Amino acid sequence: MQTADAAGHVFDATIALSPLDGDTFTGHTHPAYANMVGPFGGAIGATLLNAVMIHPARLGDPVALTVHFAAPIKDGDFIVAAKPMRTNRSTQHWLVELSQEGEVAAYATMVTATRRDTWGTTESSFPDVPGPDSLPPTPRIPQTAWTRSYDMRFIEGGLDGKRSAEEPSRTRLWIRDEPPRPLDFQSLAAICDAFFPRIFVRRPKWIAVGTVALTTYFHADAAQLAAVGTAPVLGQARASRFEQGFFDQSAEVWSAAGTLLAVSHQVVYYKE
Amino acid sequence: MQTADAAGHVFDATIALSPLDGDTFTGHTHPAYANMVGPFGGAIGATLLNAVMIHPARLGDPVALTVHFAAPIKDGDFIVAAKPMRTNRSTQHWLVELSQEGEVAAYATMVTATRRDTWGTTESSFPDVPGPDSLPPTPRIPQTAWTRSYDMRFIEGGLDGKRSAEEPSRTRLWIRDEPPRPLDFQSLAAICDAFFPRIFVRRPKWIAVGTVALTTYFHADAAQLAAVGTAPVLGQARASRFEQGFFDQSAEVWSAAGTLLAVSHQVVYYKE
Repeated sequence: MQTADAAGHVFDATIALSPLDGDTFTGHTHPAYANMVGPFGGAIGATLLNAVMIHPARLGDPVALTVHFAAPIKDGDFIVAAKPMRTNRSTQHWLVELSQEGEVAAYATMVTATRRDTWGTTESSFPDVPGPDSLPPTPRIPQTAWTRSYDMRFIEGGLDGKRSAEEPSRTRLWIRDEPPRPLDFQSLAAICDAFFPRIFVRRPKWIAVGTVALTTYFHADAAQLAAVGTAPVLGQARASRFEQGFFDQSAEVWSAAGTLLAVSHQVVYYKE
Repeated sequence: MQTADAAGHVFDATIALSPLDGDTFTGHTHPAYANMVGPFGGAIGATLLNAVMIHPARLGDPVALTVHFAAPIKDGDFIVAAKPMRTNRSTQHWLVELSQEGEVAAYATMVTATRRDTWGTTESSFPDVPGPDSLPPTPRIPQTAWTRSYDMRFIEGGLDGKRSAEEPSRTRLWIRDEPPRPLDFQSLAAICDAFFPRIFVRRPKWIAVGTVALTTYFHADAAQLAAVGTAPVLGQARASRFEQGFFDQSAEVWSAAGTLLAVSHQVVYYKE
């Protein structure tokens, strides 16, 4: 197992932002998280989240993140501007914009909040799956560099045609950063976008696809994420409907101990 | 069965906006869609969507809508500003802000797109439920005026304690506008927020709650919505996790003919 070197983990370099002023930052795409064209969307979403995490006015921890992939992002530099739209006593609402050459290429809205103890319960069920150590790592996809930045072990619904009979586009896998990195909100946000487009599971055929918008709800606080450490998390994704050029997919991300860390939903464009 | 009078349906009056300039409109809350405090969130979301629907620069039909309820909205007037963040060949990304007294109280992001014929399928299943005519209308909740603007017929998961054994917070109901009104994107957006907070189904007890952010993906085009007409639609909602002051809930809205019209997800604040 590799570990991050003293210079820090490549994911941290990927989501790094340098302040220009209080609300504005500069960043750049990283080849370790490149997709077939442009950067992996999960890394962009994590970068937009990171702008709020390092913002001096932030109140509390992330509760909700919606990312709009508004236009293709070019490899290279970008500017990120984050502003609180409204700050309440215990919740705060944000708008974050990523621009290149003066045009918005992606933007996000967020809710951060001070969390506190309440009654709680989980209604979703942790699936009946083999542990990560009993499964081989899935070979990376050569055309997508970002898949080399994750250790993925598919239980079902990979790109090898092994599918669930009752839910043909369902995927279950163990996933962690490669090299290992302690889980935090930024890496969890990226993992929530690491599920392949459901149409490739449902109907193996090469077509043009792209996430249009993605929403993640965080159900864990920083301490629950820290408790996961560098261990793999269990991801599960499914689709509801494919119709006239767009489909939706929903994912759950669980710790091996059975804590539902986040749920995520996205709508994806497809060409045919 | 009542019908709308010649002056138009009260829902249209509720979401009505008057142009101030190309991007800016004025609107006002309506007593028929009042909640216990302030307006019903579904009516606010539909109003923000309506700003895009009537905007002269709109490209295509709604695909995604995310609404942030950033602060309490006061009964009375408000200003809505809608702007395209990025316009592509077949998709368009929007930001819409609702302000009162110079402060943002709610805002939304949207994707609109030109839809076209592609391969398609539905993976979610229409539930096995009795038809709407075999069920009595559910009594309205006196404290929430907006519930009088809907005909709701609960199959399970109403506020009467009749719950699903396997999913304790699940609701299934038939719902339509009251008086009847032909379904369109605006009314479907409002119906997607008409599911009671899951915590009241799961744990009947009066506590303070409020939707923080809501995302809806539209799976139907205008023709599929028009085909529903004024008939009731089947709604189904469930929760994943309740934790430290926030829970998520997800909903599906189906036509009686078995078309999945929309899916919707929200994160809700709760006090204890």
